[in-house]
Amino acid sequence: MNALQIPDFVRAQDAADPLRGRRAQFILPEGVIYLDGNSLGPATYAGLAALEQASHGEWAQGLIRSWNDAAWVSLGQRLGAQIAPLIGAAADEVVVADSTSINCYKALHAACAMRPERSVIVAEAGSFPTDLYMAEGVVANLRDHRLRLEGRDAESIDDLINEHAAVVLVNHVDYRTGRLRDMAALNARIHAAGALSVWDLSHSAGALPVHLAADGADFAIGCGYKYLNGGPGAPAYIYAARRHHAGLQQPLSGWWGHARPFDFVPEYEPITGVGRLQVGTPSVLAMRTLEGALSVWDGVDLAQLRGKSLALAKLFIDTAEGASTDLGLRLASPRVDAERGSQVSFSHPDAYPVMQALIERGIIGDFRAPDLLRFGFAPLYLSYSEVWLAAQTLIDVLRSGLWRQERFARRAAAT
Amino acid sequence: MNALQIPDFVRAQDAADPLRGRRAQFILPEGVIYLDGNSLGPATYAGLAALEQASHGEWAQGLIRSWNDAAWVSLGQRLGAQIAPLIGAAADEVVVADSTSINCYKALHAACAMRPERSVIVAEAGSFPTDLYMAEGVVANLRDHRLRLEGRDAESIDDLINEHAAVVLVNHVDYRTGRLRDMAALNARIHAAGALSVWDLSHSAGALPVHLAADGADFAIGCGYKYLNGGPGAPAYIYAARRHHAGLQQPLSGWWGHARPFDFVPEYEPITGVGRLQVGTPSVLAMRTLEGALSVWDGVDLAQLRGKSLALAKLFIDTAEGASTDLGLRLASPRVDAERGSQVSFSHPDAYPVMQALIERGIIGDFRAPDLLRFGFAPLYLSYSEVWLAAQTLIDVLRSGLWRQERFARRAAAT
Repeated sequence: MNALQIPDFVRAQDAADPLRGRRAQFILPEGVIYLDGNSLGPATYAGLAALEQASHGEWAQGLIRSWNDAAWVSLGQRLGAQIAPLIGAAADEVVVADSTSINCYKALHAACAMRPERSVIVAEAGSFPTDLYMAEGVVANLRDHRLRLEGRDAESIDDLINEHAAVVLVNHVDYRTGRLRDMAALNARIHAAGALSVWDLSHSAGALPVHLAADGADFAIGCGYKYLNGGPGAPAYIYAARRHHAGLQQPLSGWWGHARPFDFVPEYEPITGVGRLQVGTPSVLAMRTLEGALSVWDGVDLAQLRGKSLALAKLFIDTAEGASTDLGLRLASPRVDAERGSQVSFSHPDAYPVMQALIERGIIGDFRAPDLLRFGFAPLYLSYSEVWLAAQTLIDVLRSGLWRQERFARRAAAT
Repeated sequence: MNALQIPDFVRAQDAADPLRGRRAQFILPEGVIYLDGNSLGPATYAGLAALEQASHGEWAQGLIRSWNDAAWVSLGQRLGAQIAPLIGAAADEVVVADSTSINCYKALHAACAMRPERSVIVAEAGSFPTDLYMAEGVVANLRDHRLRLEGRDAESIDDLINEHAAVVLVNHVDYRTGRLRDMAALNARIHAAGALSVWDLSHSAGALPVHLAADGADFAIGCGYKYLNGGPGAPAYIYAARRHHAGLQQPLSGWWGHARPFDFVPEYEPITGVGRLQVGTPSVLAMRTLEGALSVWDGVDLAQLRGKSLALAKLFIDTAEGASTDLGLRLASPRVDAERGSQVSFSHPDAYPVMQALIERGIIGDFRAPDLLRFGFAPLYLSYSEVWLAAQTLIDVLRSGLWRQERFARRAAAT
């Protein structure tokens, strides 16, 4: 890999990159080109500094006093306000709490409660699976409800959006193919049918501009540990459009969503607004790490972010396809920019060992069954040179047959 | 405080304390006597070391590879196995996940599903309030269910345990008074009525031996950040007796409880056993901190722990009462050892400013409305000398009227 000469046109792209200075905020190990930030974002210096302060200072020295002195009690709403501009929401429409799975459950319950005369949850068979598993739990609670899936019960989600649909749960960007949904158009379709939307932003927020309010979304959820770089299993977020705040209810009615949690009264009395989507005491160490990591977004122009993301993807596709006509690669992501998030997936009949061989060569992407090589492009820390090198290494692995070596054949669990 | 001479009999207790060597494992700030470990346990060197390794090593250097290489995927079950001996459970009966509130919701749903012909959840009006709030959420889901409370609907919990009761939710140790329930006797009563039990161990586990299996408990939940010292908002745990594993179900059916989460299939298929009580991806940083903190329990004799806890409480009560007959203190905790956990609460008409004055003097306990001074005794890191000094300082604050100064009068939120 070191022997490869970066072409001048790639060097020129790096030189002209308005985001190139952001890379210094990230900790990236030597010898690795990291194209898996869409699964687990890397650590940031600010995130680890906030963690250090929270653990060694606020907790170890401040002890119980830090709930007030370090404002731990308001972390959920403070972090929600930090995420809001990345997803086109107002500061008081987003709160950070729990996991994406649990937030999915809350959002689906809240939406179903607003359409009591309807009994269908619509989703995609190709959803990130935990969304579907949580929807199964909601349907089990509500008993007369059922779950209908695009790709199983119908060809297109449009066929399922009718007068029975209470809520439509969709992934903004498909985690396997990178396909990007048209949020405004789909919300209009959902609302025309009298239903509500729940958007999973896990694979879009932090990689491209999201306009929840302008595009009419009702609810949204998303992950803190992918493009938001909050650390493995970081707390997740949940959005409720302000027009839904008055009627907001969900069954995970914990003390962190109480109007006066420290009065210790026996009756639940929720706080007004998205605060009631909080449940139990959050991990302060995890929250503070995410808080630090979110500071890397200060001053980032999301249009520049999107521009670079698309340019990185184009460079990767062009380089890989240009040299690999007979190497078995087939583009599994949409070729049109407007339909693609910030990842590129190629199918290959032997995707698993090919990815293992790439990882051994320092190119970290991931494999998704049955045959996908998945590469994520996080524009804040990746350079054009890295992306070009990654594509060249992919070609080299395929041409050389390196991946056929036995050590790459085993199957391991991975996220 | 420094001017006080520790009496010889107190020094002798410290010298004879078999647990005195454990204190070196904890980070305790200078100038503080910490009697609030029942609310937020202090940091441990092992916990912070594990956090450092997880953040700077496993995450920052290992990136996505650490899900396998650092065995992040099995943290929930691994930590459950670490907690099991502290609560009298087998390693495969406990899992660490989410918050105590969310685990309460799971346990109540699981228990109610096992008694479908019954429709009452019994609890204590004096429960830690989030337990009741979560029970309200479960009742709202199940619709035909209702919640009945000791201290509101009946004088005694016995009066509520009848043929309508599906599940009885009780706090092993009352968070305000420190009253300890007789677990074996109450489980026998609950089972005789055909109901199931859910025990909240947040204020007992780590302060006294708990015998869930021997005492016949069905389900239990508990907090990772009090006597287990896992850090503010640390992940919580949940126990299900092995006899209930086959029929175990709960609606928070996330991918972390799936039999094969990384196969990404659209249908939920739970893993066998307590693993299915997991929901979404846990915070690895929070989990690893708790994992490190739990190592301080290696080799601890829980009978010694309980012996020291009771001796510390006796020293505190005797010292405070011996010198304070007319100072307005009234013992609010049971006087009998067998009925008390590891905390001592005194009522005082001006408990709030008294506690603020104590905190200014370096004695950190807490206030619970309306009139309680609450002091927790964590035997692994507290000395007899500290407890004697705390009681003497309490007397001094009351005698001197220090607490009447205006700066102590304000009311602030605190946990």
